Amino acid sequence: MNINSRLLQDAIDALTLLPGIGKKTALRLALFLLRQPPQTTEKLTLALSRLRQEARFCRQCHNLADDELCAICQNHARDASLICVVESIREVMAIESTQQYRGTYHVLGGVISPLDGIGPEHLNIETLVQRCQNGKVREVIMALNPTLEGDTTAFYLSKRLEGMGLTLTTIARGIAVGAELEYTDDITLARSLAGRQPYQPQ
Amino acid sequence: MNINSRLLQDAIDALTLLPGIGKKTALRLALFLLRQPPQTTEKLTLALSRLRQEARFCRQCHNLADDELCAICQNHARDASLICVVESIREVMAIESTQQYRGTYHVLGGVISPLDGIGPEHLNIETLVQRCQNGKVREVIMALNPTLEGDTTAFYLSKRLEGMGLTLTTIARGIAVGAELEYTDDITLARSLAGRQPYQPQ
Repeated sequence: MNINSRLLQDAIDALTLLPGIGKKTALRLALFLLRQPPQTTEKLTLALSRLRQEARFCRQCHNLADDELCAICQNHARDASLICVVESIREVMAIESTQQYRGTYHVLGGVISPLDGIGPEHLNIETLVQRCQNGKVREVIMALNPTLEGDTTAFYLSKRLEGMGLTLTTIARGIAVGAELEYTDDITLARSLAGRQPYQPQ
Repeated sequence: MNINSRLLQDAIDALTLLPGIGKKTALRLALFLLRQPPQTTEKLTLALSRLRQEARFCRQCHNLADDELCAICQNHARDASLICVVESIREVMAIESTQQYRGTYHVLGGVISPLDGIGPEHLNIETLVQRCQNGKVREVIMALNPTLEGDTTAFYLSKRLEGMGLTLTTIARGIAVGAELEYTDDITLARSLAGRQPYQPQ
């Protein structure tokens, strides 16, 4: 495409910095905004600016927060003796969507990955240890992805939290609800057999 | 997804106003911006604001312009006696990309479509007639899409520009370069036969 406008070219260049947005999509978005009333663009740019400038991370759990503490840590109805350790904000959202978990979270901000140069010192692990040292925490659930890095991180955490009198758990690995046994991979099937549970009629 | 931040929710709401961007994509884009340095967000919001506030439409041809006249109308090397009539800015860009056309354009801003309530009075037709009345225009090429609406618009334009001593042409309809005769639809094949041209060895 031959863009004859400096303004349009700048807008396209800025939009293509976003993940999954190429030149054609950027052009479509820019021309869409041009066709809409100026308020649409204002609303978008204001919301993005405010998000980037005002969004903070919770002092306690490092989740996204509008204030010093996130909405979950502020909520006294949540069980503060239960901490669910996750890799990023996305996992907090996914677990919150289930509406089944009433404890708090701790966002690590990544997993230990020596190949990417990410060691324990780059993650929010010290603050987790401090939270556990106050004596009020009963259980730490490690909800990390079932990858080599996730398992390494879980192992490191288990060593750091050893001897604190905590219950350390990990979310269940097994076949997904609705999945078929025949098409489940070997490791998952083996883990779901090893982690078998007493039958409870629903 | 359960979004616990007002700021993030606002950003997602604003992003989903864009075409082709749903909630999951909006979340991904917002979290991406949060991970990037603030300059990325500033660059994006500034470029979009400037585009919407400062972009104008060429006084002469209604193409997107940074000044009163667009870059094409300002360019004295372009043949002003030749006007290519197109539906929107996108077609200007597509034709410019071929680097084969050296005339000027006229952007209608749509095509006549009674079903959508778009009549000739909603399009930039009067300014085209005025441009043709100055006596310097030699040929008007109608480069409209081969749809019912495009054909209607071309017919209307031919009536409006009648008796002005202009050559009225339309871009060639025929089989695309690289396409196969066997799989070409009947109407296109019939038109390409009717519009046959003298053989010129390349």
